[in-house]
Amino acid sequence: MRTGIATVCLSGTLKEKMQACAIAGFDGIEIFEPDLVTSPLPPEDVRKMAADLGLTLDLYQPFRDFDSVSGDLLTANLRRAEAKFKLMARLGMDTILVCSNVATASIDSDDLRAEQLGQLAALAGDHGVKVAYEALAWGKYVSDYEHAHKLVEAVDHPNLGTCLDSFHILSRNWDTAPIEAFSPDKIFFVQVADAPKLSMDVLSWSRHYRVFPGEGQFDLAKFMGHVVRAGYSGPVSLEIFNDVFRQSDVERTAVDAMRSLIWLEEQSAKWLDAASDAGTGTGAAGTPAPGRRRYPMELATLPQVAEPAGYNFAEVRAADTQGLETVLGQLGFEFNGRHRTKDVQLWSMGHARVIINEAAPADGDGATGDASPAIAALGFDVASPVIAAARAQQLKAPAVPRKSQANEEVFQGFAAPDSTEIFLCQGTSDGTAAWTSEFGEGLENPTAGPTAVIDHVNLAQPWQHFDEAVLFYTSALALEPQPFAEVPSPTGLVRSQVMATGDRAVRLVLNLAPLNQQRKTYQEHIAFAVDDLVATARDCRARGLEFLQIPANYYEDLDARFGLAPDFLATLQELNLLYDRDADGEFLHFYTATVGSVFFEMVERCGAYDGYGAPNAPVRHAVQYDHLQHR
Amino acid sequence: MRTGIATVCLSGTLKEKMQACAIAGFDGIEIFEPDLVTSPLPPEDVRKMAADLGLTLDLYQPFRDFDSVSGDLLTANLRRAEAKFKLMARLGMDTILVCSNVATASIDSDDLRAEQLGQLAALAGDHGVKVAYEALAWGKYVSDYEHAHKLVEAVDHPNLGTCLDSFHILSRNWDTAPIEAFSPDKIFFVQVADAPKLSMDVLSWSRHYRVFPGEGQFDLAKFMGHVVRAGYSGPVSLEIFNDVFRQSDVERTAVDAMRSLIWLEEQSAKWLDAASDAGTGTGAAGTPAPGRRRYPMELATLPQVAEPAGYNFAEVRAADTQGLETVLGQLGFEFNGRHRTKDVQLWSMGHARVIINEAAPADGDGATGDASPAIAALGFDVASPVIAAARAQQLKAPAVPRKSQANEEVFQGFAAPDSTEIFLCQGTSDGTAAWTSEFGEGLENPTAGPTAVIDHVNLAQPWQHFDEAVLFYTSALALEPQPFAEVPSPTGLVRSQVMATGDRAVRLVLNLAPLNQQRKTYQEHIAFAVDDLVATARDCRARGLEFLQIPANYYEDLDARFGLAPDFLATLQELNLLYDRDADGEFLHFYTATVGSVFFEMVERCGAYDGYGAPNAPVRHAVQYDHLQHR
Repeated sequence: MRTGIATVCLSGTLKEKMQACAIAGFDGIEIFEPDLVTSPLPPEDVRKMAADLGLTLDLYQPFRDFDSVSGDLLTANLRRAEAKFKLMARLGMDTILVCSNVATASIDSDDLRAEQLGQLAALAGDHGVKVAYEALAWGKYVSDYEHAHKLVEAVDHPNLGTCLDSFHILSRNWDTAPIEAFSPDKIFFVQVADAPKLSMDVLSWSRHYRVFPGEGQFDLAKFMGHVVRAGYSGPVSLEIFNDVFRQSDVERTAVDAMRSLIWLEEQSAKWLDAASDAGTGTGAAGTPAPGRRRYPMELATLPQVAEPAGYNFAEVRAADTQGLETVLGQLGFEFNGRHRTKDVQLWSMGHARVIINEAAPADGDGATGDASPAIAALGFDVASPVIAAARAQQLKAPAVPRKSQANEEVFQGFAAPDSTEIFLCQGTSDGTAAWTSEFGEGLENPTAGPTAVIDHVNLAQPWQHFDEAVLFYTSALALEPQPFAEVPSPTGLVRSQVMATGDRAVRLVLNLAPLNQQRKTYQEHIAFAVDDLVATARDCRARGLEFLQIPANYYEDLDARFGLAPDFLATLQELNLLYDRDADGEFLHFYTATVGSVFFEMVERCGAYDGYGAPNAPVRHAVQYDHLQHR
Repeated sequence: MRTGIATVCLSGTLKEKMQACAIAGFDGIEIFEPDLVTSPLPPEDVRKMAADLGLTLDLYQPFRDFDSVSGDLLTANLRRAEAKFKLMARLGMDTILVCSNVATASIDSDDLRAEQLGQLAALAGDHGVKVAYEALAWGKYVSDYEHAHKLVEAVDHPNLGTCLDSFHILSRNWDTAPIEAFSPDKIFFVQVADAPKLSMDVLSWSRHYRVFPGEGQFDLAKFMGHVVRAGYSGPVSLEIFNDVFRQSDVERTAVDAMRSLIWLEEQSAKWLDAASDAGTGTGAAGTPAPGRRRYPMELATLPQVAEPAGYNFAEVRAADTQGLETVLGQLGFEFNGRHRTKDVQLWSMGHARVIINEAAPADGDGATGDASPAIAALGFDVASPVIAAARAQQLKAPAVPRKSQANEEVFQGFAAPDSTEIFLCQGTSDGTAAWTSEFGEGLENPTAGPTAVIDHVNLAQPWQHFDEAVLFYTSALALEPQPFAEVPSPTGLVRSQVMATGDRAVRLVLNLAPLNQQRKTYQEHIAFAVDDLVATARDCRARGLEFLQIPANYYEDLDARFGLAPDFLATLQELNLLYDRDADGEFLHFYTATVGSVFFEMVERCGAYDGYGAPNAPVRHAVQYDHLQHR
């Protein structure tokens, strides 16, 4: 698959954008006209730079408001077009995007449109230019891609084809199957964009909220499947208008973009294989459509991995580890000793393993001191760390080095978008981890303590990298995004995106903290699941644990909402436990006080309860805020 | 008018919110239930604190999903309600908001609803509680305020009335005139919220984008006019769900909120007076409705001011003034000397006056050095500075002290939300300013130089205070917000809000810079209008001015778009002039290089052109960005 990206997706100057696209590995780019108009580079220099960078210049865009106009305006539009065709010759470009008229269309006649597009195609032919005509979702008369294609067929000129943009098609819920019947000679260009499903006017949606494939909710694999089956083999190019990407680091956004196309390529191949197996498609009636290898577009695949089987460990980094050690001990964790060569400690409780790394956190925290504990790494159990790491690297996940000695297990690791280190570990069927033998020489091995596992981990995401993180965990770690939630806190709304495996063995919560409270001051946490939370809480209390103090008002409200048995309610209040219930089951949990910017949670899931106690999250935020104010 | 505000409008804890409301001068508050549930304060302490702060506790809210349910659920809902009624007794509160059912309504029958609301009213009566029933705009069966009112009338119980929320009414475009026919005894509460007119689902719109009155586009004066005419005299209370206010400084947001009610009160009085003059209303046929003084709600007014007649001066502050002096001189400004007692210089060109204040800018700029020039103050010509200042102070604009000696003009000044100082000056019919005589002792007074005026000033607004700034300039300075624009820059979209007088003598542009580029690094500017820009540019060039260099690609595109005469186009390009044209006229302009975080623009308006060359703004941003990268 030939990969492309429109320069409008990225921040910076045209030069910076081109360089970033080359570094990220794109085959070609679309020149978004304002990027050229505002650039000091002459067109000839742009052409040479692209050639030197190994980038093809695939599409000049956009040319607006051409069709359905009166005669005078047509003359002016053709003059305007010719100026751009001449410019394209200097750029060495041969395809221009012409989108359906929004602003100046005044005559609604397909015959007239065809005649006008025919004139444009003839002029383009004189200049060796191909016109890719696209139906904008909000075009005045032409807003449907099949309509645009019919006009292209009516004109039937070798220099006129159509451009298919997934946003304009999927935002309107058009059926994409008819694409298969298009002649590949008439599809001049394909643009892909994803988007969250929002209920708002389509123009604002398009201009601000597009995201890279895999970061939204459109079925792009199906769209691409139909495009491939039509026989198209040209560039598949990203055109993403997004307020955040416009202001993020250009090289990093380009990598995020490239990752999305690599992922989309794989998903498209899978869709084609599945559709072929199911015998759907446009083959002769009853004949299964041929597999993807039969089409002109070649689709590369990636090393295949299953979703992770669970958390292997979580690692907290701190220069001063005293507070962490105290809390873990009070929670019931056992100290399993220090590593034989590294400055790290292992603590465990059942299969929940926490590593304390005795080093300052990587990104210094001015507010609470560099020594302040922070979540630094997560280990996941996968079937084959080598294959999973190869997949992650093909998806351009940055590898992180981890020093190891002979006879020590080598972890495959890479950095998540928020810089948390992700390690791929060899899972075992009994939930143990071989590397633990590297710890605690001279210590007795832990005897069977209380059963516990890591239930979920909450990580704060920088606002510039939230969408990137969703795609990262989806593509590299095979986690599935769950429905989005918003939680009020005293300092703003916290947007919360759960990523999880189908069996919920791994639950990872990505929190987008309010802008005034980004990573450095936002609190992250690790939650452990136990079988009997009340007993666990009593044990913790006996060991002197400092619980997050829940206000009495909460228990009154809980009683009003659920009508709990008085004894049970009294127990909850006595132990600072929080409670939630839904149609699937019940949830009990409590929080520790915060150590640095980390705290811990203990949970008990009853029945098939699948949530996180969201109604209780505002209480937790408010109490933590109150503590922060008064410490 | 009794003023109120719901605690959900503000950031912080319940205690912090209450304190901020008292400081801002509110009469009462609505307790938003989650603020109480998450608070460590027992209800009795909340009651006492409110009394001590002089705040009434006007409304407990929200009680959700009561009506239109099956029998079992009704029993549970009544039990839940009774728990809240008992809680309210401890808080000393007597009114609760019950909103129409969204989640659990299953039976669509007005008879059933009336019966169920009747049971609730009876129970409420037993506890001395009044139920204010509100139609949510997205209520499952009840979404229209007239429907809610009909149910209230059908039940006809002294403990059941309605709550009117302007958002739920105006977001659905309901006619507000029928409110006048409501019995005031049945209107238990009135909530006001403004909002920008957005085309999106009403729930998301409501939960994230509400703003304080005067910051959006709803006709709240009319809504309030009908409410007053109905005879309502209870609290008028703000209920604003806004993502930004939730994370802004609580005391400051409370003042912004209070300002909005003071302004709304005045606007409502004006609407009533105008409607009374026009003879509209519900008086007997043909009889003019009585003026506002005849209704139970008393509406205070403010000192009345006309819109400002023009800019009196702009002030730039810098520790090192050399760069500024050079650029102003090259632009054609004359140095009019230093002030006789202060460390400031006066520069003028026609009626355009620039003061250079020889002091470091107030908010230090780490990126470009504290000495870096920045726009610090703006002077506006008003009919009466004393009256205008009194109005601004009643609108809670913070006064700024300006030292003055005997025999010097005393400026009335206050701080805008972005901390720019705004001074109210005595305008003169000939455009001169008396205070200029305090400058340049021993210098000859300037002779008539080229005619020039300050055309507009662009100020960068911190993201937390953008909406606040719109209300501030609307209410305190009588500027009118114009339609909103967005300009792409290499580091993100710049949102641009023009505030202007009807005659355009004052144009002030509020720019919301991208998040990664807030006030400290964002560039602001002052634009001067002249009669002959080409001649001015030639003069400036002869004086050695460094123009912002416009790329050749821009002129090619300009030619493609407008088909300009070759000589004219060559002149534009030779002088780095930018050009725009619309149906009303033409616009020529150029920019200087940046000095610190300030640059200057020269413009010529031809015909009735009313814009700012918006199509050229991306060019300006891109070139400035390029310079920043390479300096």
